[in-house]
Amino acid sequence: MLAVFCVRACSGLAGFRTATRVRSVHSLPGITVAQIDEEVAKLLQLKAQIGGDDGKHQFVLKTAKGTRDYNPKQMAIRERVFNTIISCFKRHGAETIDTPVFELKETLTGKYGEDSKLIYDLKDQGGELLSLRYDLTVPFARYLAMNKITNIKRYHIAKVYRRDNPAMTRGRYREFYQCDFDIAGQYDGMIPDAECLKIVHEILSELDLGDFRIKVNDRRILDGMFAVCGVPDDKFRSICSTVDKLDKMPWEDVKKEMVNEKGLSEEVADRIGEYVSLQGGMDLAERLLQDHRMSQSKQACAGLSDIKLLFSYLQLFQVTDKVVFDLSLARGLDYYTGIIYEAVLTQAGAVPAPAEAQKGAPAEESVSVGSVAGGGRYDGLVGMFDPKGRKVPCVGVSIGIERIFSIMEHKAEVSAEKVRTTEVQVMVASAQKNLLEEKLRLITELWDAGIKAEVMYKKNPKLLSQLQHCEESGIPLVAILGEQELKDGVVKLRVVATREEVSAHILSA
Amino acid sequence: MLAVFCVRACSGLAGFRTATRVRSVHSLPGITVAQIDEEVAKLLQLKAQIGGDDGKHQFVLKTAKGTRDYNPKQMAIRERVFNTIISCFKRHGAETIDTPVFELKETLTGKYGEDSKLIYDLKDQGGELLSLRYDLTVPFARYLAMNKITNIKRYHIAKVYRRDNPAMTRGRYREFYQCDFDIAGQYDGMIPDAECLKIVHEILSELDLGDFRIKVNDRRILDGMFAVCGVPDDKFRSICSTVDKLDKMPWEDVKKEMVNEKGLSEEVADRIGEYVSLQGGMDLAERLLQDHRMSQSKQACAGLSDIKLLFSYLQLFQVTDKVVFDLSLARGLDYYTGIIYEAVLTQAGAVPAPAEAQKGAPAEESVSVGSVAGGGRYDGLVGMFDPKGRKVPCVGVSIGIERIFSIMEHKAEVSAEKVRTTEVQVMVASAQKNLLEEKLRLITELWDAGIKAEVMYKKNPKLLSQLQHCEESGIPLVAILGEQELKDGVVKLRVVATREEVSAHILSA
Repeated sequence: MLAVFCVRACSGLAGFRTATRVRSVHSLPGITVAQIDEEVAKLLQLKAQIGGDDGKHQFVLKTAKGTRDYNPKQMAIRERVFNTIISCFKRHGAETIDTPVFELKETLTGKYGEDSKLIYDLKDQGGELLSLRYDLTVPFARYLAMNKITNIKRYHIAKVYRRDNPAMTRGRYREFYQCDFDIAGQYDGMIPDAECLKIVHEILSELDLGDFRIKVNDRRILDGMFAVCGVPDDKFRSICSTVDKLDKMPWEDVKKEMVNEKGLSEEVADRIGEYVSLQGGMDLAERLLQDHRMSQSKQACAGLSDIKLLFSYLQLFQVTDKVVFDLSLARGLDYYTGIIYEAVLTQAGAVPAPAEAQKGAPAEESVSVGSVAGGGRYDGLVGMFDPKGRKVPCVGVSIGIERIFSIMEHKAEVSAEKVRTTEVQVMVASAQKNLLEEKLRLITELWDAGIKAEVMYKKNPKLLSQLQHCEESGIPLVAILGEQELKDGVVKLRVVATREEVSAHILSA
Repeated sequence: MLAVFCVRACSGLAGFRTATRVRSVHSLPGITVAQIDEEVAKLLQLKAQIGGDDGKHQFVLKTAKGTRDYNPKQMAIRERVFNTIISCFKRHGAETIDTPVFELKETLTGKYGEDSKLIYDLKDQGGELLSLRYDLTVPFARYLAMNKITNIKRYHIAKVYRRDNPAMTRGRYREFYQCDFDIAGQYDGMIPDAECLKIVHEILSELDLGDFRIKVNDRRILDGMFAVCGVPDDKFRSICSTVDKLDKMPWEDVKKEMVNEKGLSEEVADRIGEYVSLQGGMDLAERLLQDHRMSQSKQACAGLSDIKLLFSYLQLFQVTDKVVFDLSLARGLDYYTGIIYEAVLTQAGAVPAPAEAQKGAPAEESVSVGSVAGGGRYDGLVGMFDPKGRKVPCVGVSIGIERIFSIMEHKAEVSAEKVRTTEVQVMVASAQKNLLEEKLRLITELWDAGIKAEVMYKKNPKLLSQLQHCEESGIPLVAILGEQELKDGVVKLRVVATREEVSAHILSA
């Protein structure tokens, strides 16, 4: 619209000297020549699509960039994955809520830091300024504050939107599902946090995606560590995001970034390097509580004590086999205030090699697709929405469902397992012509009895094509009507796989 | 953005005479003073929200106009309704697909006639021009054409978006669910059409919303009727939309609109009036096939023969008790080409009286909330997307799910039925202090055995508050741990409703 409007605005100036007009276009603040070019290109493209002299519309048949349709097979896999996850959430007593796909723009403002540029805005068509939701956490916080809810355990599975440059082969899209479980409320320390990890453990085990590991850290331990290592306060966030790259880059490169780009001294970087190489369990937390440097930071000590408590609950939940306290874990989001965690798949084989990686992208890329869940504690977010700033402590986990879909789809392909897209139990078929009425009568009985049944929408389909349809869509049984059978008041029931047949009496037809 | 840009464009002209500047603002094509005022008001509102000197952001805590959150109770009702509907779709052998929430803007262009103004556009942030989907039918047609699918029976339940002026008390929103079932493919006449009506019959019966009626008509009968009554060809659509008002307005008012606004002669209007008052079944279709006027129209005859065939299948499906051939039914959408239908609830009591109607809106308003499903045949839509115009005949039905939610919510309120929002079977509780470890051990066993269980996130909750939680959320059982029980290796299992207690042995704890 920018270009169109510009042209209009300028045409209003017609009659002035051409030089003035051209200059005024170039000097219009907020518009660059490149933008105008882009607009013109877009309009020409549109014109081409509308078509030339033949008057026919030429549509571009595609979905929007970074989005996809789900076909029935993909939906069948999606349903299976959702059922496993929802069962787990329900087993843990969660309720569910839903929120609109768009929020007031200002609801999202100031929640995502740099990533705010990835938010989709709606066009201003009069009325409120709206944006598509970027995640489910901010709408959840808005919901809690708006309804003054101080306690809830809820899950929410819905699509979110990011104007990212998607790598769709790795299960990254502009429209994608999030699958969140959160516990809000003022409770005794680490019990809900431990339950979130128990849930991740249950879901990943049940989905059978191969071996996994859940890395745990704490925002306070990271901040305390930076402080005692000598990182200036105003560089915490920036250094944190560099540490976050350790799962994709070797330490040497991370150190280089800290020193060359972020301006840390070699000495400070090396101190950080010592800590972020540490991994362990409750024992590591205990050791660090005694560490001459770490013990200087109250924040770090609070975090370390909580990690200890967390592990004691994880032992009771019997999930410590997969959980590791890892000081290199530094999740990006601004709103985390305490414990953070991330689950990764450790079997390379479980993860489909993305098409791009095969074409020569670095091997690290395919390793990084391993992250399948993440979350943490965010005690301040709800308070940002409350007029009086009242806090509602929250902890939650988000299951990386799109990545899981990709893996499951890949598995289904590789295993050549036949994914059924319907649940039809029986096909009502006919051996001769002119039996449509009898078939419709029989299928009515089946439907009314709750049996999943299909009939072909042809008056006189061939028996072979009816049987073929069963084989293609995995329908296990065919009820075959024939003239002789109708006289005898029976129907032939055939098992498609074995071709076994029995005669069954028709009760009321 | 209009106003901001306007101000910018104008500031580029600074230095010219004020009179010129003001004039140029007034003469900018495409912008009215009212629009500028609106923009200014919006900006001032934004400024007020950003806050004054205190630097604190003042959020407006609300959802976007015409949208709502679903709380856990509403979600529980929604889940129940969806399960009933999806079971029915699956019983009839449907697959499901999903499409993105936004489409290329041009995909939606030219499909909705006048209603196109209700489409939500996304802001142009670079790249493709996008719009939120307005229904599920157009994306379905796009999907079929794009994937060259000529046969499918699919359902799709998802949210759609319309910038309407919503009457939320009557279950009308700007974001709302559609719940569609469609059969695409070249089949023998009226078999899939009849199945769609069978499905509506099954769903409305199972949901137990009270008595209902399914009105049936055919676009070709309407067009034929208009032709033989003497309506000029170019007024068919316009007169059709007037006929569509017959469920809200008496014939006299509809006639007035035809004569005074649409320019029909009294005589032509009266001829139409005779026909649109007719209702019946197969017999009526037979009678009209003999009618001296109707029989002049090939179109009408084709439609009437199909209605006859349809009713013969509906008899086999045993649903004719609810279906009525009604010549006044004229659904608005442009894309229908054959049979059309609409289901209405006939028991006024089943429909919650909307708050507005109670405040004096005409009684007809509350009657019109009765429509709970609708659909028809659209044989031309897919062809609009196919580069070669190849047609895929389609017929489908959309369940008015939001209206059904409203009715179910209202029913739940009136009946004072307790709607459970979780499925927790047992609460793990403690009678004394310091039993958290034992409780966590027990609940781990329960979870791992697939039992839905909860524990309070407190180290030492009072027994009373644990029992209260069970009563509030309808948890039927409590497993109570006490010191004596632990010594004996048992747990007390209490039925919350009756307070009956039994001791159960703990197997492995």
